[in-house]
Amino acid sequence: MKAYDLRILPAAPSRGALSPIPGEDVVLRGGFWGDRQELNSTRFLPHCYAWIKRMGWVDAFREAAEGKPTVDRKGKSFTDADVYKYVEGLIWEAARTGDPDLEAQLLELETVIAAAQEPDGYLNTYFGHKGVDARYKDLSHGHELYCAGHLFQAAVARLRTHGEDLLTTTARRLADRVCEDFGPDGRQQICGHPEIEVGLMELYRATGEPRYLKQARLFINRRGHRTLEAHAIGFEYYQDDVPVREGGIFRGHVVRALYYAASVVDLAVETDDTNLLESIIRQWDATVARRTYLTGGMGSRHLGESFGNDWELPPDRAYTETCGAVAAIHLAWRLLLATGESRFADVIERLLYNMVATFWNVEADRFFYVNPLHQRQSGIAVADGEVPFRKDTLRAPWFWVSCCPTNVVRLMPTLSAYAATSSEEGVQVHQYFEGTIAAMGDTGPIARLAVRTRYPDDGEVEVEVLESSRSAWTLSLRIPDWASDGARVSIDGGQSLVAPGMARIRRIWKSGDVVRLSLPVVPRVVLPDPRVDSVRATAAIQRGPVVYCLEDVDLPDGLTVNEVAIDPAARLTDVEGPAGLDDGLVAVRASGRRVELPASVPWPYGSDRRSEVRGRLDLTLIPYHRWSNRGPSTMRVWIPVVRAE
Amino acid sequence: MKAYDLRILPAAPSRGALSPIPGEDVVLRGGFWGDRQELNSTRFLPHCYAWIKRMGWVDAFREAAEGKPTVDRKGKSFTDADVYKYVEGLIWEAARTGDPDLEAQLLELETVIAAAQEPDGYLNTYFGHKGVDARYKDLSHGHELYCAGHLFQAAVARLRTHGEDLLTTTARRLADRVCEDFGPDGRQQICGHPEIEVGLMELYRATGEPRYLKQARLFINRRGHRTLEAHAIGFEYYQDDVPVREGGIFRGHVVRALYYAASVVDLAVETDDTNLLESIIRQWDATVARRTYLTGGMGSRHLGESFGNDWELPPDRAYTETCGAVAAIHLAWRLLLATGESRFADVIERLLYNMVATFWNVEADRFFYVNPLHQRQSGIAVADGEVPFRKDTLRAPWFWVSCCPTNVVRLMPTLSAYAATSSEEGVQVHQYFEGTIAAMGDTGPIARLAVRTRYPDDGEVEVEVLESSRSAWTLSLRIPDWASDGARVSIDGGQSLVAPGMARIRRIWKSGDVVRLSLPVVPRVVLPDPRVDSVRATAAIQRGPVVYCLEDVDLPDGLTVNEVAIDPAARLTDVEGPAGLDDGLVAVRASGRRVELPASVPWPYGSDRRSEVRGRLDLTLIPYHRWSNRGPSTMRVWIPVVRAE
Repeated sequence: MKAYDLRILPAAPSRGALSPIPGEDVVLRGGFWGDRQELNSTRFLPHCYAWIKRMGWVDAFREAAEGKPTVDRKGKSFTDADVYKYVEGLIWEAARTGDPDLEAQLLELETVIAAAQEPDGYLNTYFGHKGVDARYKDLSHGHELYCAGHLFQAAVARLRTHGEDLLTTTARRLADRVCEDFGPDGRQQICGHPEIEVGLMELYRATGEPRYLKQARLFINRRGHRTLEAHAIGFEYYQDDVPVREGGIFRGHVVRALYYAASVVDLAVETDDTNLLESIIRQWDATVARRTYLTGGMGSRHLGESFGNDWELPPDRAYTETCGAVAAIHLAWRLLLATGESRFADVIERLLYNMVATFWNVEADRFFYVNPLHQRQSGIAVADGEVPFRKDTLRAPWFWVSCCPTNVVRLMPTLSAYAATSSEEGVQVHQYFEGTIAAMGDTGPIARLAVRTRYPDDGEVEVEVLESSRSAWTLSLRIPDWASDGARVSIDGGQSLVAPGMARIRRIWKSGDVVRLSLPVVPRVVLPDPRVDSVRATAAIQRGPVVYCLEDVDLPDGLTVNEVAIDPAARLTDVEGPAGLDDGLVAVRASGRRVELPASVPWPYGSDRRSEVRGRLDLTLIPYHRWSNRGPSTMRVWIPVVRAE
Repeated sequence: MKAYDLRILPAAPSRGALSPIPGEDVVLRGGFWGDRQELNSTRFLPHCYAWIKRMGWVDAFREAAEGKPTVDRKGKSFTDADVYKYVEGLIWEAARTGDPDLEAQLLELETVIAAAQEPDGYLNTYFGHKGVDARYKDLSHGHELYCAGHLFQAAVARLRTHGEDLLTTTARRLADRVCEDFGPDGRQQICGHPEIEVGLMELYRATGEPRYLKQARLFINRRGHRTLEAHAIGFEYYQDDVPVREGGIFRGHVVRALYYAASVVDLAVETDDTNLLESIIRQWDATVARRTYLTGGMGSRHLGESFGNDWELPPDRAYTETCGAVAAIHLAWRLLLATGESRFADVIERLLYNMVATFWNVEADRFFYVNPLHQRQSGIAVADGEVPFRKDTLRAPWFWVSCCPTNVVRLMPTLSAYAATSSEEGVQVHQYFEGTIAAMGDTGPIARLAVRTRYPDDGEVEVEVLESSRSAWTLSLRIPDWASDGARVSIDGGQSLVAPGMARIRRIWKSGDVVRLSLPVVPRVVLPDPRVDSVRATAAIQRGPVVYCLEDVDLPDGLTVNEVAIDPAARLTDVEGPAGLDDGLVAVRASGRRVELPASVPWPYGSDRRSEVRGRLDLTLIPYHRWSNRGPSTMRVWIPVVRAE
């Protein structure tokens, strides 16, 4: 049996350009993400636990164990997966904090889950019991194997941080069942929602069992050949339209596409299949270039929760589900490790500050499902205790379908693992989190570093070498893609301008050495590519990695955001954030105009449909991630520009 | 028993500002709509009949009669309605043409339908049989009463054009069953898809049976109180969110909203309920002002086939289902008859030339389901014989869900009825179709008129009085809303400028009198209201009632429509239409620029994302209704404007 490394590693490829540094070796101390990690731990994790119980999703396992039909529970066929994702988060969090109460909660859940397992290893509370549909009855839409995949990922977390136990045994028994039922001699089918592929790949990594890799490969290769049922919005909905090697860009359901792509990267890496890896890089690059919002969010269609066509990026009906952001982080992280190229970390940064941070309200007891960039009318408020069916509301305590919260729950305790990597060459810092990093090389410790910063409030980052090996190594600091003008690195009194990418400093380091990175965190105007028709003649404000927005509570005279234009040539300045939000929040002051819209007429098209630009107006923009914390409002990221008259 | 008036009347209110003129009293002779009515008759009607048989939707009745389960047929729970809508179209067409083959086909279908009726009057092929779901099991989503409503409308057509027979007996037995099951002492429920309400109202009008009006009123008043199941996109999906008297604007599923509104108008008219009528007028006016596309199309969301919020009118993802256009015509017609106000006929005109006419291909053997105003990438082509699940393809021979074709089939034979009305005052001509109009007043014939025109190719309309009563009466000619500049009426050598609305000429008419209407059918630039964010800084071209578009087959050098801008200040001229389309089609020549888009970059947002305007370019625009007849293409109605540099 393999001796497990007990480590917080959200993915553990056996090779690649960069090696991950386990989460326990990167300690966040306050700051933007340390505070949020704490809030996730103290507020959001218990919030989610209360809700998955209240919705009956845990009891579904008890009922399955007792042989009761379970189709009447609140929620869809895939709620087992939400329990598993919660359990995965709990495992990482228990490992991060060592909290014995979390460990006790985990053991209770492991028992409940294991009790529902059939003697032959099958496990699902929605299918395969008396009075409900038979096993594998609805592979296209039933999410049965998807749920299994999430159990495997939870088991992987347990194997990496603890070792074998009841949960991992349960998962392996189910994995063996799946390999039997869907192997070379089994059903030549796949699941409508990819996930089991990445679950199996990681389970292979955590156990060394080659059968899991083989089964993942079977599933991966079966997709793309119209293997599933025809779908009302096309086979692309579940990436069953084109074999992955031939894909040009991600398409269809966003979370399905990205989970699938993550499994393909895992397979490519573990089998040294360069061509396969390149197929995903090609699709990722095309998607980032043509199907991604300024916030990093992906998915412009509510119908099918899917990528739109190229340049189809409406701000008002942006779907950009939070799950898609977590999935994109998982994928980008794998690509970063495989290639070492900083553009993948750039997207992770964008997603963290503008999608993940936007998820919770200030109190972390409500969350967004979808993430529009324009709220033309005040959004739909959700009452306390209300569980919306619809997904396009403002933040709610819970949704009928609640895939997103448990995805955030499993991301946050592992967040520190995304900060840095190591390689033969040295240490790479990708995300500037306040805290410490301990990096091991193949032959021993490389260094311990302290990162001190108020990023993203300002752009000053101090990296101090606390301890170092005696050999020369390279400290690489990511210069974000947005920092194309004025990023500077200084060391020993010398200073140099650096371009986006990796700033590399190679030397023999000693304790007390300090590198100062100065990133140009100042507000700046961003224009959309003219192919993004839906935001023609508008501009947005970004400051460092943070996208800003205009919310009508910050406008005078009861104006909505639809009655305002911005002057993109005027000066932008940092100002104190408005009351009711975080202390010290940096807002941006811009200059604009009041727009007098034409009178309401019976028909909105004609030669006279023009707006009049009136008096100058100071605009106060806040970080997009803090919108909708002061009641329903209109909001926009892309603001019409004042035209030269 | 009532002596039926045998007449082609798509709606027959017992009172109102205007009285409809039956379709057989308005004879189309060629021209834009006469040709299409003929094509519908000779090509599209048989096409639809072949397909509803091929899909098993007729056999479903046979199988139900034999007591076989029928859930495995191709199509959803509502395919009975498509058979009924086809039958309604067949009835109108048989009446219009007197074709005995159509009558024979009708009698066969009547027998097939009647055989499936249960002894107690219940009739549905999807519910209420051995092996399938019980009656009324899924009122929210099952479309059971919706299907019944369409049977009633077919029976009404038969009563109006023929009198009682097997179909009308079948319908009345079902109506009586519904009144029993859902009456004051029955289930206090409604159907998730409104239609039975308007079916019952019209059946009341055609039979005089007051029980049907009472049942329609019960259904109408039950809606709006969260009577149905909670819906994933809100109770507004089926107009069950707010009682109709309190509604401010149409919302939710477009066809549901408009069918419902039509029934409410019918109820308001028959019960002299002014307040109720005004509630629909208010919602209609608000919807036309804020939730309607330039084409008259309604419904901007694919998800839920629904109205978007105010000003949410994306051109690329416009849903604007053809069924919604037919439903809007039905509703606008009722409002026109009730109020006599020309703005309702304006919208009918817009819908006819830009939605209904766009439906078929030139050969009338394929049709659109959804109707985008911007095709950024070439659309999805459909092979011969292919039946798409997805609705966002180019024209197809048939769709898996095919509600639209049978709606067009029942509209086209009645089209002439929309041309004109009569009142105590005289005759009103609303649509300028080439043909003759015979108008009866309460006390006898008013007049016979000949309308001669090439409208909408040009704006010259000649109305000749062929016969007239001896008393003075008013000839009213609708001046369309778009004709605000330069419409002229001339008679007896005199000429006067007329404004949009009704141009009225009162006199004692004699045979041979001729009125000449000259409408300014010239190409003109139309700008969108600045609140329609998705088409900011663009312009469209309209010529008379016809919206034009740019299709890339008419651009040089392989340009797509995304690489072109239009100069809205430059001159527009009529030119001959391109080859491969109708002879004599009028195209429009505009002046634009070639747009050089920025190079493709990894990230589409930044300070440098600007396009360059290059050399001048002649643009040839074609009527929107003729797009996609020359293979897959990019297309746009709203074209970015060249900016002053």
